[in-house]
Amino acid sequence: MDARQIMDSDAFKRCQAFHGHVCGGLAIGYLAATAGLDWLREKRALDEELVAIVETDACCVDAIQALTGCTFGKGNLIHRDYGKMGFTFFNRRTGRGVRLAMKPDAFRVNDRQITLFRKTRDGSITDSERAELDALGMQRTVDVLNTRAEDLFSISAVTAGMPDKARIEPSTPCARCGEPTMASKLETVDGARVCRGCLA
Amino acid sequence: MDARQIMDSDAFKRCQAFHGHVCGGLAIGYLAATAGLDWLREKRALDEELVAIVETDACCVDAIQALTGCTFGKGNLIHRDYGKMGFTFFNRRTGRGVRLAMKPDAFRVNDRQITLFRKTRDGSITDSERAELDALGMQRTVDVLNTRAEDLFSISAVTAGMPDKARIEPSTPCARCGEPTMASKLETVDGARVCRGCLA
Repeated sequence: MDARQIMDSDAFKRCQAFHGHVCGGLAIGYLAATAGLDWLREKRALDEELVAIVETDACCVDAIQALTGCTFGKGNLIHRDYGKMGFTFFNRRTGRGVRLAMKPDAFRVNDRQITLFRKTRDGSITDSERAELDALGMQRTVDVLNTRAEDLFSISAVTAGMPDKARIEPSTPCARCGEPTMASKLETVDGARVCRGCLA
Repeated sequence: MDARQIMDSDAFKRCQAFHGHVCGGLAIGYLAATAGLDWLREKRALDEELVAIVETDACCVDAIQALTGCTFGKGNLIHRDYGKMGFTFFNRRTGRGVRLAMKPDAFRVNDRQITLFRKTRDGSITDSERAELDALGMQRTVDVLNTRAEDLFSISAVTAGMPDKARIEPSTPCARCGEPTMASKLETVDGARVCRGCLA
């Protein structure tokens, strides 16, 4: 499929609806998720059949959540804060895993985009600059979606390091605020079990 | 709306489609997100207009992502690992914020559910036990959705602590693996800038 066909697909529209907008990062996540699922020969996870380890918290992860069913709230999306476009997918049933890592210089945000991103952050962007940023973003999205996953990512089998399943445990009240808290997250202070919110 | 009307609504179905299944946790997130948006008088965030701070990574957060547009990949979903059903929503435009915190004993998972959850985790659950767990989960979902948000949560205005917007920065290669990495996440080892993945 070329970029236009992908952008018209239900799968991409699901990413867009969840993320709220289209951007190059979402396109990178789309490619990573679809290539990862293809490699695992799996569809979207309804429960915890699949696990994703993501080494970034950037836009791409929203496409991964929407497409793979590995979501923050299900506990099968694991964030390792490395600041890298690295994505590992495991299939709990088969034990197979694959890591996709962005190739060096495969896809750089250009300096003008970064300048304009910063202006949106500090609120100084003008209407014409915002239009320019939108156009640059759309071009980047199209460029990414017209790239083959194997050209964008190094793709390698992973045989070890499957994370444990999410833990479920009952709550007990914090000794200070009284709010129900997972017992394993309470800290002992002067003999009392206190939540991290009260200690923050 | 009663539980049945909520479960038939587009908003709840969006949560269900994203999360992959219906459960009491998703229902708690639905109530928190809708009550939070009502309080802020806002709709779903397309970009970073809203921010959510969540004090848990349980199922409820998927409803919050789907309904508020505060998502892991947009950087406007902030996780504080307190193990608490606490949810703070800020509106960047108005500066208004609200925190919802589950009331003590407002809604406990019963011991039988926890026993059966654990059996699903270790794979020892039987078919009849799974059916029992599904029925308990559905009853819990209905019970949560028939509860008023103000009966489930303490709800209070928050005036301080709005998180910064997500940061965007260009990547530089790790000195060991060569993979592009956010410069601020590289660590200096023997004078070289190395990614946390190589150091893990």
